[in-house]
Amino acid sequence: MKTEWYLVKPGKKMSLADYDANDNGKLEKDETNEKLLKLKQELNLLQTQLYADRCYALLIILQGMDTSGKDGVCKQVVSAFNPQGVQITSFKVPTAIEMAHDFTWRVHRVVPPHGMVGIFNRSHYEDVLVQRVENIVPKEVWSKRYRTINDFEKMLTDNRVILCKFYLHIDQEEQRLRLQDRLEDPTEHWKFNISDLKARAKWDEYRKAYEAALMRCSTDEAPWYVIPANRKWFRNYLIASILKERLQALDLRWPPLEDGTVGITIE
Amino acid sequence: MKTEWYLVKPGKKMSLADYDANDNGKLEKDETNEKLLKLKQELNLLQTQLYADRCYALLIILQGMDTSGKDGVCKQVVSAFNPQGVQITSFKVPTAIEMAHDFTWRVHRVVPPHGMVGIFNRSHYEDVLVQRVENIVPKEVWSKRYRTINDFEKMLTDNRVILCKFYLHIDQEEQRLRLQDRLEDPTEHWKFNISDLKARAKWDEYRKAYEAALMRCSTDEAPWYVIPANRKWFRNYLIASILKERLQALDLRWPPLEDGTVGITIE
Repeated sequence: MKTEWYLVKPGKKMSLADYDANDNGKLEKDETNEKLLKLKQELNLLQTQLYADRCYALLIILQGMDTSGKDGVCKQVVSAFNPQGVQITSFKVPTAIEMAHDFTWRVHRVVPPHGMVGIFNRSHYEDVLVQRVENIVPKEVWSKRYRTINDFEKMLTDNRVILCKFYLHIDQEEQRLRLQDRLEDPTEHWKFNISDLKARAKWDEYRKAYEAALMRCSTDEAPWYVIPANRKWFRNYLIASILKERLQALDLRWPPLEDGTVGITIE
Repeated sequence: MKTEWYLVKPGKKMSLADYDANDNGKLEKDETNEKLLKLKQELNLLQTQLYADRCYALLIILQGMDTSGKDGVCKQVVSAFNPQGVQITSFKVPTAIEMAHDFTWRVHRVVPPHGMVGIFNRSHYEDVLVQRVENIVPKEVWSKRYRTINDFEKMLTDNRVILCKFYLHIDQEEQRLRLQDRLEDPTEHWKFNISDLKARAKWDEYRKAYEAALMRCSTDEAPWYVIPANRKWFRNYLIASILKERLQALDLRWPPLEDGTVGITIE
């Protein structure tokens, strides 16, 4: 499995039809789940170095249709990290205070500081997705936001925030099964939200909006990845693999002792 | 092992000399570590119900001398929870903005909302510990704070914030070993802070300040526990056991489907 294959090439046309939501990278489920356990240990070590080093932040952006597995990635992949070095923010319908600001304001406040891993469960991309599809703002407003997003993200990456953006790609039939599950399993009832059906009815419009965001906002520094997500085990493994590659590329080192503390004996 | 034994009885005199930092509850290490794995799965389930239910918050306060294991508890116990339902705050030396407010201000802002687990790595108790021992504020200021803390915590528990306060109890020799380790192990260098030695030199004064805080602020609703913490495996197991008891006492249930969504078939 090559992670580059799942990267949205900056400046190129793309279509989600070219990505198979059932893709399993030709891997075996059981074997891959075992590999994931080892990968998670490696991620834990890399994150401890990121935390100790305080030179970089890692920001993971999770987007995808309802039931695509954003919460699942938090539970099954992000759990690899020491929770003390992690801050997860779920962005909901904007509050009145948030609406009174520009759309990057609420996300900027919770960008992880150096040393930390931040996870955005939904993000500023909602402002070119739901806001576009549901006509919450007119085209002349949302159409300018792609540029704003690229500028904002460039500022972050210039400041050593490593950006990993994952679009979780499921198909409509998989969403149907998952929503029905929530209705039938008493331990899942709380996840069911009737308004999810409204978004489901606009599947093709959302898909078009996602394609625009992926195409216009995948950059060399802040690339988008399309993660086939019908198979949760493959989704987890692919994301963990990409995170490992990105963290390894930083060539993190354990910080040395500070001057004046070498050779001390504690009394 | 009875968890009540480790509880600081409200309104009673107590001395830390009565607690053995080496206490292992007469348990075996390997067996207990295996039990901890099962306990963590149970905690994960209970937390998912807390999250789904959104009626209670759980606030865990960790206090203890340097190297007593506050970070270790985050890594080894708090990791049981789904990270999406957890927010950890480490309180450092107050900033200028924090200093311009009353001492509960900075902690109040990050009290977990219903459904969430909050962890305070250090807390408002620093304001009757370091601020008392280091004479940062005069006695007439810090001596009023015990009452303020009890009032503040009563307000929280009245609002269904479940408070678990853990004092991690190590002895001076154990701290010596742990500090020396940080100087010798290259993967631990970043944890060594020369100012820890200044606090170590005032061991007895800190101990007295801890005893005052534990005695005056252990209440029926927001009790303090003294956690023997020389043995990390026992510390982890005891804390996980107490958390399980406190969460089980809430008798959490999976929320039912909302009206109008029963019997729906997804198209």
